[in-house]
Amino acid sequence: MDIENILDQLTNLIENRKIKDLREFLKNIKSADFPSILENIEDERKIMVYRLLSKEKAAEVFVELEHDDQERLINCLTDKEIKNVMNEIYMDDAVDLIEEMPSSVVNRILSNTKPINRKIINELLKYPDDTAGSLMTTEFIDLRDNMTINDAFKFIKQKGLKKETVYNCYVVSNDRELIGIIDIKDLLLADREDVVKNIMDSNIIKVNTLEDQEEVTKIFDKYDLVAVPVVDQENRLVGIITIDDAVDVIQEENTEDFELMVGITSTTDDSYFKTNVFTHAKNRILWLLLLMLSATITGTIITGFESAISALPILVTFIPMLMDTGGNCGSQTSTLIIRGLATDEITTKDFLKIIWKEFRVALLIGIILALVNSIRILIQYKNPLIALLISITLIFIVLASKLIGGILPIIAKKMKLDPALMASPIITTIVDIFSVSIFFWLSSIIFNL
Amino acid sequence: MDIENILDQLTNLIENRKIKDLREFLKNIKSADFPSILENIEDERKIMVYRLLSKEKAAEVFVELEHDDQERLINCLTDKEIKNVMNEIYMDDAVDLIEEMPSSVVNRILSNTKPINRKIINELLKYPDDTAGSLMTTEFIDLRDNMTINDAFKFIKQKGLKKETVYNCYVVSNDRELIGIIDIKDLLLADREDVVKNIMDSNIIKVNTLEDQEEVTKIFDKYDLVAVPVVDQENRLVGIITIDDAVDVIQEENTEDFELMVGITSTTDDSYFKTNVFTHAKNRILWLLLLMLSATITGTIITGFESAISALPILVTFIPMLMDTGGNCGSQTSTLIIRGLATDEITTKDFLKIIWKEFRVALLIGIILALVNSIRILIQYKNPLIALLISITLIFIVLASKLIGGILPIIAKKMKLDPALMASPIITTIVDIFSVSIFFWLSSIIFNL
Repeated sequence: MDIENILDQLTNLIENRKIKDLREFLKNIKSADFPSILENIEDERKIMVYRLLSKEKAAEVFVELEHDDQERLINCLTDKEIKNVMNEIYMDDAVDLIEEMPSSVVNRILSNTKPINRKIINELLKYPDDTAGSLMTTEFIDLRDNMTINDAFKFIKQKGLKKETVYNCYVVSNDRELIGIIDIKDLLLADREDVVKNIMDSNIIKVNTLEDQEEVTKIFDKYDLVAVPVVDQENRLVGIITIDDAVDVIQEENTEDFELMVGITSTTDDSYFKTNVFTHAKNRILWLLLLMLSATITGTIITGFESAISALPILVTFIPMLMDTGGNCGSQTSTLIIRGLATDEITTKDFLKIIWKEFRVALLIGIILALVNSIRILIQYKNPLIALLISITLIFIVLASKLIGGILPIIAKKMKLDPALMASPIITTIVDIFSVSIFFWLSSIIFNL
Repeated sequence: MDIENILDQLTNLIENRKIKDLREFLKNIKSADFPSILENIEDERKIMVYRLLSKEKAAEVFVELEHDDQERLINCLTDKEIKNVMNEIYMDDAVDLIEEMPSSVVNRILSNTKPINRKIINELLKYPDDTAGSLMTTEFIDLRDNMTINDAFKFIKQKGLKKETVYNCYVVSNDRELIGIIDIKDLLLADREDVVKNIMDSNIIKVNTLEDQEEVTKIFDKYDLVAVPVVDQENRLVGIITIDDAVDVIQEENTEDFELMVGITSTTDDSYFKTNVFTHAKNRILWLLLLMLSATITGTIITGFESAISALPILVTFIPMLMDTGGNCGSQTSTLIIRGLATDEITTKDFLKIIWKEFRVALLIGIILALVNSIRILIQYKNPLIALLISITLIFIVLASKLIGGILPIIAKKMKLDPALMASPIITTIVDIFSVSIFFWLSSIIFNL
């Protein structure tokens, strides 16, 4: 059923005041579809629809909403309703909420949270951003190794956790050290009288609370996991990270790279439209200013060749083509290297291999570009000397730009900077300086200027 | 245990011919770690290590290897060993293998595959690349709605499937139509005498075999799924896609976008080093040629202003800065829009909203850049008229480039092209033409040239 269809039926039920049918109808709508549905109905009806949801569903839907809609909703809810939401949602979602709400709302949320959960939230808030600790949730099944499978089943039923936390169960020692993992499939197929110890896997893939979130996603990807346990410095199990959060991090990190690679330094993960004009300008201005001022170096170099330009004004017409080609060549290489570093296909040890590979690719491309351009110049200007000049310049520029594009991301990585910084804008600016210098230097040799 | 540690122990066990210990030791190494281990041991030892693995593990490790290592391994294996691998691996992995191997190897693989699996492989090979059908695997649990939970458990034990396919079970009708889903947690907690029908969820998120793989990943992301069922045109269940494959697609699609955005048209998903020099050159040359030739338009425009340049040669020194700033501004906007379209935060309907937003951002940025640049020019050249010219030009260029950067990806999307095409290289080239034109036009007005 698509959103428009749902909306039609919903409006119909509301207008005919068929509350019972409406309640049934809402049960069949997936929580993730609610944001787009609520967006499309009138404000006074929103809260009415929300109040018809079951306790569990109300919490699920709440988590799916955008931050500003959550804030508006909280302001309409009673303390009891907020309590219900805070009892039902996962601790990682609670932490996200607390981090995004203004302080007055935070106070109201926390005063309607059970003391034990408040304590957990406060613990989780202490982990630095972008670490495993800040991603994890604290709802998981922790079994003991001397339990029978029957005991384990009883324990799970009693804890009554939701599905995403239950595909893997964890086995901890008396001092809460993580000693084993059991996949739910193995629990299901095991003999009921057997002991947990015998079916658990003690060869555990786990991460530390302070592990970088990008490394966490790589572990998910490499080992095809649905959840990974998080341990503290003493190997005590403190939480788990689930695959859906790992996928969100993958997308966030990709977006960050895309933005960084065109000189956007975003400080929030708000969407394009949720970000206001001033923040957009602030995110973009820094690199533009830096790059604009750097680009004047290229201009200054050109000033040094004013006499050459006066003598042979046609030279100027080749500057844009040479600059653009250099920039494009360099960006291609730097993007491949940046992406390779991000996906672990390339490491800083591959430095020389990259240079050798790019050198050969650049030579091949440089020769092809030079040939095509020579033909164009011979047809357009009938001047073989200029064709020669541009050909040699092009080959030099392609070589230089591809090598610069290959080297800079590796250097950035070695310096513990984000390699994505070394993308199009910086490469273009650096290659420009080189391109213009080599062009005028070769011109002055060939034309004796 | 890290790779180096594993390698030390492994070498030790091999050299002391402790085969039994070696076999035990290998059991504790995760399949995903084998590629980097095998890469680091001598060739003759590789096959010996591989042969010590259990049947199931041998198949798992095989799937983890790179395609050329798989080919080399197959050439060392007996028919019986190949049979074992083909009996153990998932059908989606089998299809990937068939697609990547040379035909002689494919013949040997298929002749060692059970006829029923050969039939499935042939069916799966028919689905177009990048569709749900080409991603799915055919191992899943299909229950009937009149089974009791006890029956369901027996059925699962009998099918004996591996973990990734078992977190969700599917319920099908007599003619194999998909009518319900059961999460394994619900199966586990259900009363053993109850009937499948009563605990299944008939409100199903599913995809069609021909659904685009990018849409499939969005469904995983939106509904936080670990697997999604795939149905044919008649709603018959034909396969499932698991989250690990969806994550791979997300990374592939991101890599494709990164590459396309710098004018690389890659035809394989081989890694940087596995791609040879000629293929690298081929992937990059097309756009470089197109862009190089387009950039000559900018050059030709400059030719038209040769007299202006002769009269005021200093004008030339501003060309690189203006071109670069325009290119950078345009790229920032186009990247935000391309990314927004890819993550569904922006739709083509937002056209006017984007223009209005970018217009205001551009005005703000243009004014700041103009101010900073005026100060620099006044200090460097002490010429207020040039400062004025550059300021006005900059504001125009920023406005135009941000609008072009905002509009082109939307147009591409409307024309069913990949919006990622409209990134830095194309934007830069188009904005260059505009920047140079506006610059010389304003110069001729202000300086009466």
